[in-house]
Amino acid sequence: MRIGVLGTGMVGQAIATKLVALGHEVRMGSRSADNENAAKWTGEAGPDASHGTFADAAGFGELLFNCTAGLASLDVLRAAGAESLGAKVVVDVSNALDFSDGRPPRVGLGNADSIGEQLQREFPDARVVKTLNTVNCEVMVDPSKVPGAHDMFVCGNDESAKADVSALLESFGWPASHILDLGDITSARAVEMYVALWLCLRGVAETSYFNIHLVH
Amino acid sequence: MRIGVLGTGMVGQAIATKLVALGHEVRMGSRSADNENAAKWTGEAGPDASHGTFADAAGFGELLFNCTAGLASLDVLRAAGAESLGAKVVVDVSNALDFSDGRPPRVGLGNADSIGEQLQREFPDARVVKTLNTVNCEVMVDPSKVPGAHDMFVCGNDESAKADVSALLESFGWPASHILDLGDITSARAVEMYVALWLCLRGVAETSYFNIHLVH
Repeated sequence: MRIGVLGTGMVGQAIATKLVALGHEVRMGSRSADNENAAKWTGEAGPDASHGTFADAAGFGELLFNCTAGLASLDVLRAAGAESLGAKVVVDVSNALDFSDGRPPRVGLGNADSIGEQLQREFPDARVVKTLNTVNCEVMVDPSKVPGAHDMFVCGNDESAKADVSALLESFGWPASHILDLGDITSARAVEMYVALWLCLRGVAETSYFNIHLVH
Repeated sequence: MRIGVLGTGMVGQAIATKLVALGHEVRMGSRSADNENAAKWTGEAGPDASHGTFADAAGFGELLFNCTAGLASLDVLRAAGAESLGAKVVVDVSNALDFSDGRPPRVGLGNADSIGEQLQREFPDARVVKTLNTVNCEVMVDPSKVPGAHDMFVCGNDESAKADVSALLESFGWPASHILDLGDITSARAVEMYVALWLCLRGVAETSYFNIHLVH
């Protein structure tokens, strides 16, 4: 599949590299077509990798990953443009972390909105699926880095989009039985606010290779 | 130990009943001294149970549980009075759930404050420990209702207060190895915001007898 990855940071690189390894054609998008991180990644990732602007990557992909910083994501998708986004699946893995008032950082958009909802509202034709933001980027693409049973969440309004994303997650190594559908895109609040607990749990676990498991 | 339980709802009743069963003397506090729930509980719970105003219960207890609705808790503790609270351990199990804008509810106080911090700021001499708010009230006092390994969190500024509360949690049935210290009272934000995910996970689990386990 042709996939656009918006964002050139650690998360974008981890996702894009995994997708190429799985046989997808991947275009990494950034604010400028000559972004250094993106150019370096393209040089290393082989013939199925390319890079360009956010609009280039969004137009190229049949499915898109938003791997930009959550507080910038709305502007990034606006830069990509509604025409490029169309009715595509937009996998939103972003988190909004704001350390400007010190620690603990503010996470998400408070308790009455989320990045996922914000993107879905602005681009009603796109099919936003929130997922993967609850684990470290290496765990996102290799869940076996955390031993034993642990869970991944998907949130979104479109059932077929969630099915497509779940299939992609399975190809990343997430067992189907550990991909939990939390409901519509309003549940993106839950997984974005959870990141406050994630930060605390990282301190307890003393590693970034951890996750939570629903026990019942 | 003499313990004051502020709040007469399901959470207060579950905690107070467990404490009496464990041999503690418990006074349940409410806005009025003749609260029906409290009187009924006292009648059923035996000679170690009593009830009164918030100030009565707070004055009686060597340690206090705040089992009131989170958005009312600050007013409740003000009604109890700083003199009654003194330097006592205040175990804050409250959650702020606001359904006034529909579902999903707003949880907590947003992403820059928490009930736990609010109480600690208002009563700097009291030693607030946030815990138990991340599970159903029956699970709070009987963690074996959820099979297998799962975790409880404690947050607070005072190490000896957290040790006292952890000992109480152990007497409730929480194994010491599953009581995770998340840090100071600012981490109350993390466990209060987590409740948004708790509500989603209840839908997945299709039971209130569930919890999460930190896997690493």
